Amino acid sequence: MLLLEKITTLVTVAAPDERSIAAIPVPHRAGSAMGEIGVVRNAAVAIDGERIAWIGPTESANFPDAERIDCTGKTILPGFVDSHTHIVFAGNRANEFAMRLRGATYQEIAEAGGGILSSMRSVRQATVASLCNESLPRIWNAFRHGTTTIEAKSGYGLDTENELKLLHAIQQASSQVPATLIPTFLGAHAIPPEHKEHREEFVRIIAEQMIPIVVEQGLAEFCDVFSDTGYFTVEESEQIYQAAAKHGMKLKVHADELSSFGGAEMAARVGAVSADHLLMISDAGIEQMREAGVVATLLPGTAFYLGLPFAPARKMIAEGMAVALATDCNPGSNMSENMQMTLALACMGMKMTVEEAITAATLNGAAAVRRSDQIGSIEVGKVADLAIFNVPDYPDIVYHYGVNQVGMVVKGGKPYPV
Amino acid sequence: MLLLEKITTLVTVAAPDERSIAAIPVPHRAGSAMGEIGVVRNAAVAIDGERIAWIGPTESANFPDAERIDCTGKTILPGFVDSHTHIVFAGNRANEFAMRLRGATYQEIAEAGGGILSSMRSVRQATVASLCNESLPRIWNAFRHGTTTIEAKSGYGLDTENELKLLHAIQQASSQVPATLIPTFLGAHAIPPEHKEHREEFVRIIAEQMIPIVVEQGLAEFCDVFSDTGYFTVEESEQIYQAAAKHGMKLKVHADELSSFGGAEMAARVGAVSADHLLMISDAGIEQMREAGVVATLLPGTAFYLGLPFAPARKMIAEGMAVALATDCNPGSNMSENMQMTLALACMGMKMTVEEAITAATLNGAAAVRRSDQIGSIEVGKVADLAIFNVPDYPDIVYHYGVNQVGMVVKGGKPYPV
Repeated sequence: MLLLEKITTLVTVAAPDERSIAAIPVPHRAGSAMGEIGVVRNAAVAIDGERIAWIGPTESANFPDAERIDCTGKTILPGFVDSHTHIVFAGNRANEFAMRLRGATYQEIAEAGGGILSSMRSVRQATVASLCNESLPRIWNAFRHGTTTIEAKSGYGLDTENELKLLHAIQQASSQVPATLIPTFLGAHAIPPEHKEHREEFVRIIAEQMIPIVVEQGLAEFCDVFSDTGYFTVEESEQIYQAAAKHGMKLKVHADELSSFGGAEMAARVGAVSADHLLMISDAGIEQMREAGVVATLLPGTAFYLGLPFAPARKMIAEGMAVALATDCNPGSNMSENMQMTLALACMGMKMTVEEAITAATLNGAAAVRRSDQIGSIEVGKVADLAIFNVPDYPDIVYHYGVNQVGMVVKGGKPYPV
Repeated sequence: MLLLEKITTLVTVAAPDERSIAAIPVPHRAGSAMGEIGVVRNAAVAIDGERIAWIGPTESANFPDAERIDCTGKTILPGFVDSHTHIVFAGNRANEFAMRLRGATYQEIAEAGGGILSSMRSVRQATVASLCNESLPRIWNAFRHGTTTIEAKSGYGLDTENELKLLHAIQQASSQVPATLIPTFLGAHAIPPEHKEHREEFVRIIAEQMIPIVVEQGLAEFCDVFSDTGYFTVEESEQIYQAAAKHGMKLKVHADELSSFGGAEMAARVGAVSADHLLMISDAGIEQMREAGVVATLLPGTAFYLGLPFAPARKMIAEGMAVALATDCNPGSNMSENMQMTLALACMGMKMTVEEAITAATLNGAAAVRRSDQIGSIEVGKVADLAIFNVPDYPDIVYHYGVNQVGMVVKGGKPYPV
């Protein structure tokens, strides 16, 4: 038994009794309910094994044999659930980034070997072990900043062999860190050069070859497609989703990042768990996603990194959507693992409140990976995944940004000083 | 003797031989020269006492008795010079920040006790020792993120006794940390409530009472005024600057943050060392500051925090100004000590190149506190203030943002693992 006691501020983000969007089958908070986070002062949390056993005021905690951690002056949140990342990759695109700032055009960067295909070349040259080793420091960075669950996508292999290699690397990394990694197959991230002239063939390979193997080997839980101008059309995307659904995969969509492409509408149509990015979402997309119970995962770091307008978070929340926040950690358009930074960008850039940002990064992030029955809030019976911050109250986490406020992470009931 | 050897990337930011703005009496880089940072691969730096004694290729380093630090895979920059902060203060305004995000108006926040006057009340209730103790963790945060020199302003006391108390706290903190603190007197930060009805009296007290005591006690090197709509008029500011100059203080200006107020023009007229913020600077202001040799100190964190448009950095650099970058770390409009974050905001938000941002945060920051003859670049004879980053090349520092990339800081020749 582990007892966290004298917690100055405990933020439970407890799941509401009634689900505000009936079509989302797991706990979440939508619309104005995102602002209700549940705050207990001078609290205690008792943990038995990997689960939360008891929550109450410190003075009522009666666990004489428990190992105790004094949390005076600390704020505890559910561990962040980063529900959209490409954190497992090879290579480094810092020079491409610096070139872009010096005014290089997309074409010049591509000619110098940049872009998604740069990561593809690095991944194709890597081994499972080297991919894993390169990615572990990033996963530890995420963990040290309070993230206990990380969705991780493939998508830099772009052929059967290399997509499988990436998914194996995610699996291998997962066994070497306390954080939980949730694998997503994103074979449809870009058209590889060898299929440039016959993309329908690549779509067919994804649908008929890659997906069956990925599912057979149990390498991915979700299937995602980069559905946007210059990437995969709505028709191609639906063809892939049909195959994925047939094989029992859950669906995610890279939707409406670069253009109002109908990605949100498609996400609703195919019954996706989440649609992500959504910078250019249409009014119809908002309406249809909400009705279909698709979580809207926003990635403000990417908009910041690329200098794009932020997604219309305030409008989405006003319309009653369930909004999640994630880093989109990836080598090309947002090289950051820090969910605290994502919260700061959500508040400064998208004008979300601190309370909404916390809900979006915990309970709704968990809903976006269909695990909010197990994680994403601090409730009796749930897995004890907690982030302990060295600040007395939760607004400080966003208010005092740019420095790591996490001092300890509890993962599955086990404490890790960071 | 200390030898840093096998440095993968050494960025010297060496001062140019000729000063591009003749009126700036210390080394700096202006306009397009800001992009020239001086990069040496596989370098070594020998340090004798607190000074840099030798720089060259690792294979030529012949210092058999030196203590060695292997910097394989590391990038070394001059320590950051954060030339504009309010890092010494009491109290916490996180709840005011959260209220603002929930839609509270400025008036409501003021009625709830927020704003600069909130910090004033906290400071007036504090002691020198408590102010120092509250501020030390912030100063350590700055240091751990690579900042070796920090300008620190008073301005939350707003009467003689409490302004002196703040300056004494800056002095006391300075003696307890390796970072160098440079004190600035900012009595004219706001009009305190007791002088609301007779502001001319407050201006007179600053000019005739506070400034002479501050100088006599040797408590501040610079005098600053918040010259903007709702704060101090140009006439009031000039009255204060006249007194400060008469007593031998160097001048800084909070200029054109909230409105195009003539602050930049005034900075040129009074011969200020720097004018800071400059979000709303006029074309005439740019021209006159450049001609008068006033460093333009930009604070992108504050624009980000408040949701204001960024200062026109690209235009300023195109016009040949010497641009510096600083955090503006303060409890109301940018609660962050991290200069790496400031670089990221400068690049993402103001489209500065990585090279320009590095120059602005090191050599030009040092010029903004008139110390670039001693610090701000890695050159033989200069003080050995260095930031050692756990990345192989300098673009990574901005590219991979939101996590602390500094692994060691060298201050005055002494290494501090962080």
